Amino acid sequence: MTYCIGMLVKDGVLCMADSRTNSGVDHIAVFRKLHLFQDNNLRRIIIMSAGNLATTQSVIELLKQDAYDNERGILAMDSMYHVALNVGRIVRQVIARDSLNASTGNHRSDDVDFSCSLLVAGQVMDERPRLFNIYSEGNFIEATSDTPFFQIGESKYGRPIIDRLLKPETTMTDALKIALLSFDSTMKSNVSVAAPLDLFIHFTDEYDERECLRYDERHPYLEMLRQHWERGLSEVFHNIPPPPSLAERSSTPASL
Amino acid sequence: MTYCIGMLVKDGVLCMADSRTNSGVDHIAVFRKLHLFQDNNLRRIIIMSAGNLATTQSVIELLKQDAYDNERGILAMDSMYHVALNVGRIVRQVIARDSLNASTGNHRSDDVDFSCSLLVAGQVMDERPRLFNIYSEGNFIEATSDTPFFQIGESKYGRPIIDRLLKPETTMTDALKIALLSFDSTMKSNVSVAAPLDLFIHFTDEYDERECLRYDERHPYLEMLRQHWERGLSEVFHNIPPPPSLAERSSTPASL
Repeated sequence: MTYCIGMLVKDGVLCMADSRTNSGVDHIAVFRKLHLFQDNNLRRIIIMSAGNLATTQSVIELLKQDAYDNERGILAMDSMYHVALNVGRIVRQVIARDSLNASTGNHRSDDVDFSCSLLVAGQVMDERPRLFNIYSEGNFIEATSDTPFFQIGESKYGRPIIDRLLKPETTMTDALKIALLSFDSTMKSNVSVAAPLDLFIHFTDEYDERECLRYDERHPYLEMLRQHWERGLSEVFHNIPPPPSLAERSSTPASL
Repeated sequence: MTYCIGMLVKDGVLCMADSRTNSGVDHIAVFRKLHLFQDNNLRRIIIMSAGNLATTQSVIELLKQDAYDNERGILAMDSMYHVALNVGRIVRQVIARDSLNASTGNHRSDDVDFSCSLLVAGQVMDERPRLFNIYSEGNFIEATSDTPFFQIGESKYGRPIIDRLLKPETTMTDALKIALLSFDSTMKSNVSVAAPLDLFIHFTDEYDERECLRYDERHPYLEMLRQHWERGLSEVFHNIPPPPSLAERSSTPASL
């Protein structure tokens, strides 16, 4: 599996992705799922991918090959909307190509799952930063202040912490802490999501070329955060008064 | 959807289930998913159900009809293992019956999902309390001290909190707090799981006949616990030092 988060906050957009790929527990590997396209002070686009690795690698490859093409290049678009539209078009193209059965000329209807989902985040020139979730069908939705984040992949374990803490007015520092805690919860409950974690933060209007940051399993900040959280949760938990029915149990067992 | 937890701790076994059933968001109803079988100081069996409601209602009905039958009755068994075996047999029977296509005499192979999963917990005479997870195929697994809990239904949202806090030596009071927090996280992130929550706690060797306890949405203890947790988490979160790269950002933006 995979887990990726995109968060749109007032200072910009944050992208975080794990890097574990597996097809069965005996075939585990590290693949980067966070891809960066940047263009000299004008555009920065971050794409994160989940789903069929053959599909998503092809999508990224084709996007790279055409990146600067005047017609179709995602580094030639004048809005993030058009970037999303073009990524969706490539997704459809790759899935149609890969699912074609050469001998019959029809699309395969068997159990092979060629689908993928992508998060496309970034900023184009003086547009505001935007965040899109692109489906296998090539269509997409955009994050808004009501729903300032998207998750793809193994999203459920790490969702409650985001629901509890992330607001549109959250600072980037807090967004990063929330994202790391969400990954920590997911990695604790599901071995198919694992460090190293790739992080890219785009601050509004800052187009300086940068690489993404990588947190490995033993990254000092990740370790500190994890210990702090674990200890803090345990304290909060133990300070919650016991349920009255059980607290009184020793004297009145039947009152439960 | 549904969410049910069974926890096996040193004092006994705890069962908690939500009560929302839906087939599409426009068809939501309250159905009890926690069923109690008890027999005058000798046996107590708690069954929780997830999956196809037609299947699980039939399973419970047939178990009730035969409860005291000397051959097949779950209130006539001399171990929880045999109770689990019999519940599994009924599950297989109901699914085979319902999925039979009357006109062809074959089992349906279309998309209708007749499957279910059940948690069967309890104690028979002087056996220790035991907890089983029964699959649609009728086979089952048992909780052990390595894995002292099972979840069925919408289990992922509420799993990290259990993974972090539940140990085999956890007291029943703490197990109940953990279960309620796990439901709170799930209900916050997923509307298909909802209060009222049904609770039954069986303390080892206590066979007095009791009904299960119900927590509605506004139950004072649930509200207190929720507020305490929400406030506590937020405090712990804000006390975690910020990531150094972002804390220093104002002076050295390129160091991210």
